[in-house]
Amino acid sequence: MEKQELNKLDAQSGTQAIARGDITAAELTAACLERIDDRERAVGAWQFLDRDLIDTQVKHLDGLPKDVRGQLHGLPVGIKDIYDTYDMPTGYGSEIYTGNRPPWDAAAVARLRAAGAVILGKTVTTEFAYWKAGKTCNPHDISRTPGGSSSGSAAGVADFMMPLAIGSQTVASTMRPASYCGVVGFKPSFGRISLAGVKPLAGSLDTAGVFARSVSDAALIAGVMAGRTDWNGEARTDSPSLRIARTPDWDQVSPEALKAFEGAVSGLRSAGANVLDDAAPEPFKPLSSAQNTMLAFEAAREFSSEWLHCRKRLSPQISDLIEEGLAIGPDRYEHAVRERNHALQALEDLFAGADVLLAPSTLAEAPPIKEGTGDPLMSRAWTLLGLPSISLPCGKGPAGLPLGLQVAARPGHDRRLIAAAQWIEARLT
Amino acid sequence: MEKQELNKLDAQSGTQAIARGDITAAELTAACLERIDDRERAVGAWQFLDRDLIDTQVKHLDGLPKDVRGQLHGLPVGIKDIYDTYDMPTGYGSEIYTGNRPPWDAAAVARLRAAGAVILGKTVTTEFAYWKAGKTCNPHDISRTPGGSSSGSAAGVADFMMPLAIGSQTVASTMRPASYCGVVGFKPSFGRISLAGVKPLAGSLDTAGVFARSVSDAALIAGVMAGRTDWNGEARTDSPSLRIARTPDWDQVSPEALKAFEGAVSGLRSAGANVLDDAAPEPFKPLSSAQNTMLAFEAAREFSSEWLHCRKRLSPQISDLIEEGLAIGPDRYEHAVRERNHALQALEDLFAGADVLLAPSTLAEAPPIKEGTGDPLMSRAWTLLGLPSISLPCGKGPAGLPLGLQVAARPGHDRRLIAAAQWIEARLT
Repeated sequence: MEKQELNKLDAQSGTQAIARGDITAAELTAACLERIDDRERAVGAWQFLDRDLIDTQVKHLDGLPKDVRGQLHGLPVGIKDIYDTYDMPTGYGSEIYTGNRPPWDAAAVARLRAAGAVILGKTVTTEFAYWKAGKTCNPHDISRTPGGSSSGSAAGVADFMMPLAIGSQTVASTMRPASYCGVVGFKPSFGRISLAGVKPLAGSLDTAGVFARSVSDAALIAGVMAGRTDWNGEARTDSPSLRIARTPDWDQVSPEALKAFEGAVSGLRSAGANVLDDAAPEPFKPLSSAQNTMLAFEAAREFSSEWLHCRKRLSPQISDLIEEGLAIGPDRYEHAVRERNHALQALEDLFAGADVLLAPSTLAEAPPIKEGTGDPLMSRAWTLLGLPSISLPCGKGPAGLPLGLQVAARPGHDRRLIAAAQWIEARLT
Repeated sequence: MEKQELNKLDAQSGTQAIARGDITAAELTAACLERIDDRERAVGAWQFLDRDLIDTQVKHLDGLPKDVRGQLHGLPVGIKDIYDTYDMPTGYGSEIYTGNRPPWDAAAVARLRAAGAVILGKTVTTEFAYWKAGKTCNPHDISRTPGGSSSGSAAGVADFMMPLAIGSQTVASTMRPASYCGVVGFKPSFGRISLAGVKPLAGSLDTAGVFARSVSDAALIAGVMAGRTDWNGEARTDSPSLRIARTPDWDQVSPEALKAFEGAVSGLRSAGANVLDDAAPEPFKPLSSAQNTMLAFEAAREFSSEWLHCRKRLSPQISDLIEEGLAIGPDRYEHAVRERNHALQALEDLFAGADVLLAPSTLAEAPPIKEGTGDPLMSRAWTLLGLPSISLPCGKGPAGLPLGLQVAARPGHDRRLIAAAQWIEARLT
């Protein structure tokens, strides 16, 4: 195998090559580091990366007997810098916490280590996983945003710096950067991966997410983090039943994104999928607005310490969100919670017999960096309901940049989502 | 006012006396510290308490102009040592984190500071808010447990060391110590108080709680933490509709606790309350067991870092829980989640027109310390469903120790719960 191309291996091929003895964890990691050396100046995916810490891990892993090796043995993983790490600084994308040293690993990071992953370093996040962008550029066009908030994780996987990375999603922070960067993003059902040691943005919405270059790789790493042996299974062979989720925000999708989406759906129909298509039921209409209300109200609570002790070091973006939240009265918040619960009780109507829902991942391709990290609208309602969702690369926009197809299942039906997404992935060109 | 009795003031009388200029925050705090000096050797409520830190806070507060004083101005509050504090060590009841210095306040603590509370110190928690007891004794009988996990907070408020304290509840960790120590405990609806900066035990269940010596004091402090101006209102004057929640575990309540409960209910009925009484509907039967499954499965995730890096420094209690959780397959966990969701969808059947549910807070009075921190059974189902609940002192057991009456409302109906609990409190003798 050409050593200089090892960084392009998908995760499962990587561990298999190590298991066969064709390559070592050291070689795989070295290839990723070489790619980072070449490209980091342009892409800016990394907040922290230390070669000595990596060396120590890799030597330990290559020395492990085969019978005690984990599912992710030797695979380099990028960690969004809102996940605590006991051996690397964790700054949450905020100047307030520059050089902060947590006393633990985030639970999800510890599970990656225990499974033999190489914790490569910390990837760039927007400030507190909200809107203020970090230094990362879209690897397909460095004048464009990679999307936020999991910017460095998505860009690094897209640019072949590593096969796997982890992020999070409170609004659209996994689906959107995955779509803009042309990789697979997977946000499991709400609550299935521990967020112990992850800085909260809005507790009712915050969810872990992962990035990979295939659905099965994404399912592999997410399954390790969640302790779910059932996620990493085979693709379904029979054709799934799909439903186009025509939410009230549908008319805001750009013509180009809609064209790519409709092309994909038509291909899936030709491949044998049953595709249902009608308007979303009534209880789903207020969800985007309810999601925004809950986000602002909860963010104003989560950042009470920063608001009290170091308000001036918060960006205008997060300060505005906190002020918006502080102005929301309890009745409006409880009303939003009831709207969510009402929609959850009507979930079967939304799916109406389909295995999964389909929608464009974003309104359009990645906007120029100066316009921000992109619009999260297409994921608001699904995040609010805690649906597991996957973004698959799906066509290109007018500037030649990636677009995404978003697939979602009922909460807790992660395995069904993965199987359907694998079926779809194999049929998208 | 007798200075030596200031520690017995309830919270609202305390702030009002300060507002009138009758006393200062320094005097109120000094009285509490004097009580602590007298009693701490016997009770053992405190994990950390530093007079210099207290002095600095009190001087600052007494110097504040009246027009910028907060709702909790000058009130000493005890903080369970699973809540991070930026100026005091936070050890989570575990030797692993002795001397740990968080870079922030837990969000709830920051809100207390912003409202003018005196952060008195850190109160004893069981290890990670689970079962391994700390040094705290029940102030009514030091051979008995104060209950766990919020042991020091409940005991300190009961023993007049401070008017207010905060704790948490994952199973019964607010209701049970409140009941055993004879004070009011209030656990708001799931998700209404931020747990940013609080060490998780099981993310789907963890909820903030508070201790006080009256319902209105408990509502005052919880309202500040939640940002809920609506919680701190007047008692209802019309009689509420109550329903005895005869869960499947009902037959495990001790005859003495049942007698106290029935006496209280009969008094409420005489005072004009409509009391409904029939068996809980079918969907509520598996909830205690589902709660235990979710607790163990999630705890095994939350403590992934400690399990990987310092397993030998965990107690047998928490290690057993983690091992139990690691052995639970994904199907069993998802089944428990579905059982919870099914019961939530049938919530109106459980309440059946009543404003609130009633049950004994615990199976019996506080057991001897050597038997552990007491049985959490009576709160398992209600915590699982995220119901807001309040424990009110209600009679005594055969050893002359306090018992409690537990009141719960629908999720999000915290104001209705508070109003009903105030009505009940005024009619319990």
